[in-house]
Amino acid sequence: MMNEDRVNFWLELSDKISVNVEQAISDARCDPDLSSVTKIGADGTPTHKIDEIAENCVIKDLTDSGRSLVLISEEIGEIKIGDDDAEVLMILDPLDGTSNATRNMPCYGISIALADLTTKSLDDVTLEDVEVAYVKNFPTGDVYSAIKGNGAFKNHEKITPISTVSKVEHATLCSYVYRAKSEKLSNLCSSVRRMRIMGSIAIEMCYVADGAYDAYLDINEIVRILDIAASQLIIKENGGIVTDYNGNPLSSKLKLTEKTSIMATCTQELHEDMISYLH
Amino acid sequence: MMNEDRVNFWLELSDKISVNVEQAISDARCDPDLSSVTKIGADGTPTHKIDEIAENCVIKDLTDSGRSLVLISEEIGEIKIGDDDAEVLMILDPLDGTSNATRNMPCYGISIALADLTTKSLDDVTLEDVEVAYVKNFPTGDVYSAIKGNGAFKNHEKITPISTVSKVEHATLCSYVYRAKSEKLSNLCSSVRRMRIMGSIAIEMCYVADGAYDAYLDINEIVRILDIAASQLIIKENGGIVTDYNGNPLSSKLKLTEKTSIMATCTQELHEDMISYLH
Repeated sequence: MMNEDRVNFWLELSDKISVNVEQAISDARCDPDLSSVTKIGADGTPTHKIDEIAENCVIKDLTDSGRSLVLISEEIGEIKIGDDDAEVLMILDPLDGTSNATRNMPCYGISIALADLTTKSLDDVTLEDVEVAYVKNFPTGDVYSAIKGNGAFKNHEKITPISTVSKVEHATLCSYVYRAKSEKLSNLCSSVRRMRIMGSIAIEMCYVADGAYDAYLDINEIVRILDIAASQLIIKENGGIVTDYNGNPLSSKLKLTEKTSIMATCTQELHEDMISYLH
Repeated sequence: MMNEDRVNFWLELSDKISVNVEQAISDARCDPDLSSVTKIGADGTPTHKIDEIAENCVIKDLTDSGRSLVLISEEIGEIKIGDDDAEVLMILDPLDGTSNATRNMPCYGISIALADLTTKSLDDVTLEDVEVAYVKNFPTGDVYSAIKGNGAFKNHEKITPISTVSKVEHATLCSYVYRAKSEKLSNLCSSVRRMRIMGSIAIEMCYVADGAYDAYLDINEIVRILDIAASQLIIKENGGIVTDYNGNPLSSKLKLTEKTSIMATCTQELHEDMISYLH
């Protein structure tokens, strides 16, 4: 486990990075090519110019920090920064919700997760080893963070669970299900109180952490680890439940190409009710 | 048609009203009963305390204005304000996106539409008679407005269409379809590029006006006129297409209980492509 000094160092650096990325995106707003695709990123998805601007900004801040780490990020893939042995692995999505960012929709931001590499090797770390999590929604300014074993925070104040919803019929569910052809899923979606799709997994998982959503679901194995590495800890540190579609703990390796399904809820009861609809 | 002086008066009053409603909601934030249901509103849907606070705030500003009008609003129904003959009909949703407002989601606001009553009687005015439209998203501060025959505006600057999407497969679609059991609709939703559901019809229709969304669709006759009275004009004044599900112009009477289906797009071509999926 990282000690308090190290945790605070990385959280403060995350704050600095997020401010700089937001500024870089804002500076680039007048660029007519902002949403153009510049290449295919290391994860196999298209890289937009705005994604590249965000990632380059983070890499500069990390290099300037003087610390040694391994960075896994959407466009560049896995790189080593610094000359010493890496002390942490940083799983980064420099800009989640790219489409929202280019269309000025109020839901896009940065996701940063950190795992300790002084006690475990790069090949062995999994989602369960994430110790520090940081997500910021740029347009609202809201910062969600968590420290493993020490709780979850919104804008630096401890989050207290605000959802007690235990039944699907009362739940606000976020799910990118419109391509799924599944009768059980269709049945679930017809039964919820409300659905929401805002277009940023990282931020919408944080909405489960603070109870703005009651649940998040993706039944296909298409959720990228780097999108949820931070937010899954933020949910769990606030007492929420995060599993895969089958109800098993998420234990994926922290690798660029790893994917998973996901079922996240504020309460155990709602998780069980969702399982009863789907299995 | 209202002359420029009258149009400007009502737009300026709408600005003042929206500031006051936002302040009233903000002042009430600490009230633990904010999201409690206080009664069934005139339109037959539950009234939450936060809705009542918003509506009362508007009624006070309208009464203070010294003008005479008919107000149609969600909770109170249809009322006359002022002693003289009503010069306008105001169709108001004082707070669209109530659930988002209570959960601090960045998509809730006010919708105000005005029709002239000096040349047409209250029983005869339809959606096509709306001359002034005003929608504000409180958390982002964005104001969308339109003057019939004089264009659409975002934050007081003329909007230019930013979407040229002509095919369903490239479209960002907003549709509250999760309860609909329709194979054609399911086929459409499986074919779009992205779906979004943010929880405020009034604001999400404005996203079609400025091209943040390419299309908005509700196939059922459940869209309340007061939710779309303003935003349908904002779309049309920016060159977008607004019809019902069958492709016919919206011509509903401006009554509290009137409902319609809706198919709104940025471009004529996308409208035709959606029709080809659905009919």
